Amino acid sequence: MADPKTAADAPGARRRGPGRPPGRRGDASRTRNGILEAARAEFAARGYAGASVRAIARGAGVDPALVHHYFGSKDRVFIAAMDLPIDPETLVTTAFAQGVGHAGERLAETFVRLWEHPDTGTRLLAIMRTAVLDGGDPAFREFVGAELTARLAEGIGGPDAALRANLCVSQLLGVALTRYVLRLEPIASTPGAEIARRLAPILQRHLNG
Amino acid sequence: MADPKTAADAPGARRRGPGRPPGRRGDASRTRNGILEAARAEFAARGYAGASVRAIARGAGVDPALVHHYFGSKDRVFIAAMDLPIDPETLVTTAFAQGVGHAGERLAETFVRLWEHPDTGTRLLAIMRTAVLDGGDPAFREFVGAELTARLAEGIGGPDAALRANLCVSQLLGVALTRYVLRLEPIASTPGAEIARRLAPILQRHLNG
Repeated sequence: MADPKTAADAPGARRRGPGRPPGRRGDASRTRNGILEAARAEFAARGYAGASVRAIARGAGVDPALVHHYFGSKDRVFIAAMDLPIDPETLVTTAFAQGVGHAGERLAETFVRLWEHPDTGTRLLAIMRTAVLDGGDPAFREFVGAELTARLAEGIGGPDAALRANLCVSQLLGVALTRYVLRLEPIASTPGAEIARRLAPILQRHLNG
Repeated sequence: MADPKTAADAPGARRRGPGRPPGRRGDASRTRNGILEAARAEFAARGYAGASVRAIARGAGVDPALVHHYFGSKDRVFIAAMDLPIDPETLVTTAFAQGVGHAGERLAETFVRLWEHPDTGTRLLAIMRTAVLDGGDPAFREFVGAELTARLAEGIGGPDAALRANLCVSQLLGVALTRYVLRLEPIASTPGAEIARRLAPILQRHLNG
């Protein structure tokens, strides 16, 4: 199972990869931050679907190739700009690694571990609040819709896979809301392993249809 | 199944009951509104558990008997003060009317109907946003914890009934979040009857443990 830090550090790790342009460390950091700032403005103005790497590059005053160099694809730019501790690709790949029959269990374990981890949990809580306030951040909503639903649905298969993926996400968000945001009792003080154990068959049922 | 308006109107209906003190209609309305205003201040200051009918009466400058006369018990004052379209007592009684074996189905149907109804749906959406913002309204959190969890757990029975009640609530809140707040697709545009049909066995599983 992926360590929470792996997903959180993935975009940052890329800047140390091969092909890094010459220049001092401080220049690279400034360029990277400039791209992230331009990305946040672009996502806020056009949402996730409407934003483009080209427009982000223009906003930062750099070549689009440099955005690709630092972050890769648009979803990676979004993950870095929003400081998301979840990478839908890694999450879904991990969940389905042992086949769809174990995906409920793997998803439940990964979900609980991300939320219980001090760094990723704090960040997820902040996102949860921002995303729900004022009817939800449109860029975040589109990102979850486009990336997480699509990747989960691909793993599930079948004609109603997208709806089942949404229902699976709804159960996960509901636990995040009651346990970590509202802190309802007794769910808030139940050990994480017990929550994962109870969630597993429910998520599996959503996945199986 | 109870009409959404029944729960919404219940507190208001009480003021036309027997034992109404003498006075013009306008006086009664002013008294009632004064009590509701004092109740909102009291719940905001002390939360649900800490608030008392006596303190609410003092805040409104009336006798505690008058608060009981207009609203009944503390949970009814809270429902009226927060303009909640859900009455946990009616909701749970309705859900378990045909036995625990049908409670998942009844809960799913009632939940979808309340959210799809223009009046109650709008109000639920507003509560959902307020309750989640800034870590959740403490009074609302305590009310859900004390009233909804306890009543659901009573209907379920067994040593882990309260946790199963929380998980049931988590699934309902998760659907509210994805379908009505975030409006993820395809769950947002799926017919309500289909959502209720898919939720029923999930809720039943939470209830059965």
